[in-house]
Amino acid sequence: MSKGLPKRSENYSEWYNELVKRADLAENSAVRGCMVIKPYGFSIWEKMQRALDDKFKETGHTNAYFPLFVPKSLFEAEEKNAEGFAKECAVVTHYRLKNNPEKPGTLMVDPEAKLEEELVVRPTSEAIIWNTYKNWIQSYRDLPILINQWANVVRWEMRTRMFLRTAEFLWQEGHTAHSTSDEAIAETKQMLDVYATFAEEFMAVPVVKGFKSANERFAGAEETMCIEAMMQDGKALQAGTSHFLGQNFAKAFDVKFQSKEGKLDYVWGTSWGVSTRLMGALIMAHSDDNGLVLPPKLAPIHVVIVPIHRGEEDLATIKETITPIMKELKSYGITVKFDDSDAQRPGWKFAEYELKGVPVRMAIGMRDLQNGVIEVARRDTLSKETRPLEGIAVYVKDLLNEIQASIYEKALNFRKENSFEVNTWDEFKEQIEKGGFLHCHWDGTSETEEKIKELTKATIRCIPLDAKEEEGTCILTGKPSSKRVIFARAY
Amino acid sequence: MSKGLPKRSENYSEWYNELVKRADLAENSAVRGCMVIKPYGFSIWEKMQRALDDKFKETGHTNAYFPLFVPKSLFEAEEKNAEGFAKECAVVTHYRLKNNPEKPGTLMVDPEAKLEEELVVRPTSEAIIWNTYKNWIQSYRDLPILINQWANVVRWEMRTRMFLRTAEFLWQEGHTAHSTSDEAIAETKQMLDVYATFAEEFMAVPVVKGFKSANERFAGAEETMCIEAMMQDGKALQAGTSHFLGQNFAKAFDVKFQSKEGKLDYVWGTSWGVSTRLMGALIMAHSDDNGLVLPPKLAPIHVVIVPIHRGEEDLATIKETITPIMKELKSYGITVKFDDSDAQRPGWKFAEYELKGVPVRMAIGMRDLQNGVIEVARRDTLSKETRPLEGIAVYVKDLLNEIQASIYEKALNFRKENSFEVNTWDEFKEQIEKGGFLHCHWDGTSETEEKIKELTKATIRCIPLDAKEEEGTCILTGKPSSKRVIFARAY
Ligand SMILES: [Zn+2]
Ligand SMILES: [Zn+2]
Repeated sequence: MSKGLPKRSENYSEWYNELVKRADLAENSAVRGCMVIKPYGFSIWEKMQRALDDKFKETGHTNAYFPLFVPKSLFEAEEKNAEGFAKECAVVTHYRLKNNPEKPGTLMVDPEAKLEEELVVRPTSEAIIWNTYKNWIQSYRDLPILINQWANVVRWEMRTRMFLRTAEFLWQEGHTAHSTSDEAIAETKQMLDVYATFAEEFMAVPVVKGFKSANERFAGAEETMCIEAMMQDGKALQAGTSHFLGQNFAKAFDVKFQSKEGKLDYVWGTSWGVSTRLMGALIMAHSDDNGLVLPPKLAPIHVVIVPIHRGEEDLATIKETITPIMKELKSYGITVKFDDSDAQRPGWKFAEYELKGVPVRMAIGMRDLQNGVIEVARRDTLSKETRPLEGIAVYVKDLLNEIQASIYEKALNFRKENSFEVNTWDEFKEQIEKGGFLHCHWDGTSETEEKIKELTKATIRCIPLDAKEEEGTCILTGKPSSKRVIFARAY
Repeated sequence: MSKGLPKRSENYSEWYNELVKRADLAENSAVRGCMVIKPYGFSIWEKMQRALDDKFKETGHTNAYFPLFVPKSLFEAEEKNAEGFAKECAVVTHYRLKNNPEKPGTLMVDPEAKLEEELVVRPTSEAIIWNTYKNWIQSYRDLPILINQWANVVRWEMRTRMFLRTAEFLWQEGHTAHSTSDEAIAETKQMLDVYATFAEEFMAVPVVKGFKSANERFAGAEETMCIEAMMQDGKALQAGTSHFLGQNFAKAFDVKFQSKEGKLDYVWGTSWGVSTRLMGALIMAHSDDNGLVLPPKLAPIHVVIVPIHRGEEDLATIKETITPIMKELKSYGITVKFDDSDAQRPGWKFAEYELKGVPVRMAIGMRDLQNGVIEVARRDTLSKETRPLEGIAVYVKDLLNEIQASIYEKALNFRKENSFEVNTWDEFKEQIEKGGFLHCHWDGTSETEEKIKELTKATIRCIPLDAKEEEGTCILTGKPSSKRVIFARAY
């Protein structure tokens, strides 16, 4: 099955596209730019959702649901936000189809069913949500509001790519309201930490936490924080954002509250989101030329066991030995599949489970049985070893933890090897072609950032939270700078 | 807080609307016919989702995701389905907004960004899914496909009502493909059973399983099965449907497979769904003039404990006693809230938790503490008793089970008392005004059903699976009939 998967070193982009398709993660649909997320891909997304949702709830958030549509007049209320999304809005203008008299058997939009006010399919929900919050908030006692929504959103992108950039995508969007600026800023940071922890502990993807420059800020936010991950081609991928909205949306929608002291003031807001884009990050961070490499914490199947048998009698004997082992593995919360289908040969199955990224594969034949051993193969390292059947379940349980840690370690080392302190413009131009994160001084202006983007296609991915104060000069203009930012090409 | 909730006996409809609002379940939004599902309401829906999703997976289904939009040409491919939904479709015609030169600061649809082909916002996903399945199915080996999707759908209803009928609603839609008619029919029945079990065991709502008459069948289905529940006003509510699609969609989208014998044939299909409408059923089946009554299996909070204290010292003493009890309750999977807020008095809290339908409320003061007792109040019966603190957690655990069973029992008795075998047209006209399920003979024609609907607003809710064969004559026409069907007015 993995035959013909393009090599990363030859065509990284083709490798990604083919992998998404062949590993049954997603495919293009009949609707321009919209994808079908297939069952195997969706089961990974479900695991992400569950883990994130648990974390949101642990930090005091609850889920709710707001309308898919935003009336145009609400959409345009927060000017910067509207400007930022207007060019990629799907717009509902009619609410009925009718028979087409000129082409019997087909339908046409009924011109008599034109909406008085057009509805925008939400590209993000700040507008509809703040318009709702207005009615929920009178006093400081009504605050904070800590709500999250799992939803689909639509942004009419011209150039789409599965998971990374699609016209419709799935995401969660948190929208919180607070009585003080400090509290809202603390929430913004807290949710960035939630995302970073999730990315590192579940996805095994190390991330840099930081602030976006003004150029890359969310339209309508005062400050955008983000986590940035490095893909295997050295490009950056923004994996999650958390926005401090200040009082922008409160002002646009006239959301005021009475403070403890009886003073009337605008409410402070945050919003934060991650999307099915994370699937793209997961795939591109770890997978190899044989297929997916999945961290155990997000793998739909942890362990597959393939019997190597001639007749049905052999199979029955193998099954007898394997059954209690499977039971023990399941008791540890491990998902095991025993693949005894006759439709395919073991070699085919090995390749298929490699393609699908199952972290551990075990194979056992009659001779193994006689010797009391089993073959254990790791997907991440592609290494194999023969292990005693005695205690194998505990061994595999520990091995899964080791794989989770090892995948993270590998990605972290890769990032280290591809992160550079760059101090001259010549160095910059040379290094950016090879990829990686370029830590450089920057004069703090949008003009310089734009010029660098024009010249090299690199943007500021973030101003890292842990950037140390140091005197330096801007890589392009030579003007003074007090800390390094990360430049990279990005998805 | 519950002050002024209208009485069911006086205005059932107003009672429902007010309850939905005051219990913080949902509210109308700025978008015509679309609701906001508030956190408390959404947490009940989440519990429904989780229970249903588990059942879908137990029966071999996996989740996936298909596009929100359906290109018009695909939408019209299955003629009956298209006809059935054409009149209530939201249609996307443009993909961009631009600044309105005539009204600075506002946006307008960009006429240059008109879509070549209009996109229908899915009212249901058969079209887009069968168009996808076409590429997934070649041989019997690719079957069955057992997929479910959790999604939002839009049907532009003119008269909307929260949860019961909204322009946008949340649902799950299962779409399966099979190599034989028998297998598809068995799937249709299996999922109806899943819905019935869920309604009865989780929602504590007894349901009648049956077939829809041709008039009420899903557009594009060969046969529609349904579960019907009785509300407290004697009206019926369709709580879930499961459709045998025959080969209709396979033919419309040219989905063929090669059988084991090498024969080419069209694929057989089913689809089945339940929606946020279930919230309406849950509310209307059990709640009373004081507010919500929730079955414990779907209650976001199972138990609330209210301390009755003067000073903070008393509160500390009460807390000390309550803490281990709460811990024990949690160990049984019970969600407990200890409400020691000073913002409201106990009486206010009692009314509030009654309104919210928390199944068990406990109250404890200093004298109770000295006597080693606690007051336990049941939401469903509104009865109170004083119980020893010793063993209280186990007592409450059992009580929750008893409440679950008792709510179901009450609803079942109500349905029995309001189900009638009606044999004459005069009886029918009289009884239908009082409400209830009328089991009557019917001549099997759409004409008769329509006439009865015109005359009485009653429709055939279903032809029950367990209707016994008996000779009779149609309630309206006197023509022969072999079994009774259920007529009722319906939501
Ligand atoms: Zn075999
Ligand atoms: Zn107090």
